Amino acid sequence: MHAITIQKPGGPEALVWAEVPDPEPGPGEVIVDVRASAVNRADLLQRQGQYPPPPGAPAYPGLECSGVVASIGPEVTGWEVGQEVCALLAGGGYAERVAVPAGQLLPVPAGVDLVHAAALPEVACTVWSNVVAIARLKKGETLLVHGGGGGIGTFAIQLGVALGATVVVTARAAKHERLRELGAAHTIDYREQDFVEEIRRVTDGRGADVILDIMGAAYLPRNVAALATGGRLVVIGMQGGRKGELDLGMLLAKRASVTATALRSRPLAEKAEIVRGVREEVWPLIESGAIRPIVDRWVRMADAADAHRLLETSDHLGKVLLVR
Amino acid sequence: MHAITIQKPGGPEALVWAEVPDPEPGPGEVIVDVRASAVNRADLLQRQGQYPPPPGAPAYPGLECSGVVASIGPEVTGWEVGQEVCALLAGGGYAERVAVPAGQLLPVPAGVDLVHAAALPEVACTVWSNVVAIARLKKGETLLVHGGGGGIGTFAIQLGVALGATVVVTARAAKHERLRELGAAHTIDYREQDFVEEIRRVTDGRGADVILDIMGAAYLPRNVAALATGGRLVVIGMQGGRKGELDLGMLLAKRASVTATALRSRPLAEKAEIVRGVREEVWPLIESGAIRPIVDRWVRMADAADAHRLLETSDHLGKVLLVR
Repeated sequence: MHAITIQKPGGPEALVWAEVPDPEPGPGEVIVDVRASAVNRADLLQRQGQYPPPPGAPAYPGLECSGVVASIGPEVTGWEVGQEVCALLAGGGYAERVAVPAGQLLPVPAGVDLVHAAALPEVACTVWSNVVAIARLKKGETLLVHGGGGGIGTFAIQLGVALGATVVVTARAAKHERLRELGAAHTIDYREQDFVEEIRRVTDGRGADVILDIMGAAYLPRNVAALATGGRLVVIGMQGGRKGELDLGMLLAKRASVTATALRSRPLAEKAEIVRGVREEVWPLIESGAIRPIVDRWVRMADAADAHRLLETSDHLGKVLLVR
Repeated sequence: MHAITIQKPGGPEALVWAEVPDPEPGPGEVIVDVRASAVNRADLLQRQGQYPPPPGAPAYPGLECSGVVASIGPEVTGWEVGQEVCALLAGGGYAERVAVPAGQLLPVPAGVDLVHAAALPEVACTVWSNVVAIARLKKGETLLVHGGGGGIGTFAIQLGVALGATVVVTARAAKHERLRELGAAHTIDYREQDFVEEIRRVTDGRGADVILDIMGAAYLPRNVAALATGGRLVVIGMQGGRKGELDLGMLLAKRASVTATALRSRPLAEKAEIVRGVREEVWPLIESGAIRPIVDRWVRMADAADAHRLLETSDHLGKVLLVR
């Protein structure tokens, strides 16, 4: 088969569509004939040599895909050859075929075509596991989403609204109108406005009950300042660095928490549990139309380098897909 | 009645046993004729003028007491005049009588005398709400308790063991033997040993699943380093300062969390919920003998200054009680 290989860590040109060995299904695995994959920011780090695949994962980038079940390994039940699926991957989505632990497969939701389904697994699992399973966002609460215009952000807006929360996002001004159409109650231009001041203004001084953050250290003091009493800050990215100052006095006065998580490194059993939760709680919201995949554009998988260049500009809104 | 008043914020000599007005029971409140109270570190801060009582709380120190129900205000059910009780307080325990919201009353556990019961409410509510309700310590996990020799520490050891956890404590060497008798599997002399190294050694490199911390900023980087994958750090004191460095990269790699909480400032409904949880889950452990109040000594309430001096040396083991 062919896959996007990383010839030598570096810029987008490092990504080369090349002939590689076919994957074989191990026990508990299924081979998916890939129709589409999607670009995640972690793929850019992997391309630069900063985010190596975990042990046992395929060497090629790609944390999610959609496609058709091509073959089934031993000890797998509940899936059939020929079935349309999408999947959460530890890698290998940028390829013609990929071996997937059966616990990470999801059916294609009714009403979503096979290509668009590739936009769902990573963001649905990331947002649900952090905003629902960890931070326990409740109806009537306020969710602040940083980077509201990306794949994670556009999904988090829709899930937050579907759960009955008020969603506030930070994003470039050019994206605000689209994000309000998706359900964001308030949009903050992080280049021009102080998000702490803005979140206080729109919550009558209370602050955000849950913050989904991708900036890490650079936003840590302001995120803690922006939390409401009992607030939960969940950090899933560190685009603004790793080490920041934490004011435990402020955290204690607010009885608040800071959690940081990653999906890719979790053990298979935890991933399967998250996928099960997503299928039970999120898939119905997609099938009812409350949440839809937001796709900026798609490019040919062989041209993955172009997709990486686009993500590096952050000009996209929603997901960028790679289609075979 | 008499109460310990704070004439002017300062040293222990600021505490003066003086005549003050009797409390009146408001709606939902009960007046307790105090038999004993206990000294908490927060009382020392209050004496120094650094921890003022929350709005509506009595002006006198004392976050817990035992005694007898003297009278009952409107809208209270389930309690009777003459009943022996102990109670979680927002203040006012260092007094002959105190008004208590009924949701913060607890019966004296079977097998515990009325004086010793004063040692229980604050530590039971603090440890249970943090270690169980927030950090969800599970059987087979490892709990690291900093300051294992104090009131909180000696209670946390016993509760951790009763829940089936392995408990490791930091404390002065002189207290180690007593703490092992209480159930600590390992004791760390924080003056001579590196607790990060020690916790790794005794957990085969895994680290602590839950850390109950009273040091705040001074221990923050090492506490994060000492956490296991999926670990939960709960900060309930800041004896080592407020602002510390948080390595979000390490937190994320461990999928770990930092929570900071305080009990006193919580709304009445939350306190009542905690007291309910303690009564359901902790009181049976006390009545079975699995947990007992650990009392270093008691002094006359009028001599509260001596008790404060003792707490400032940290030479005590367990609670210091004030008895009328």
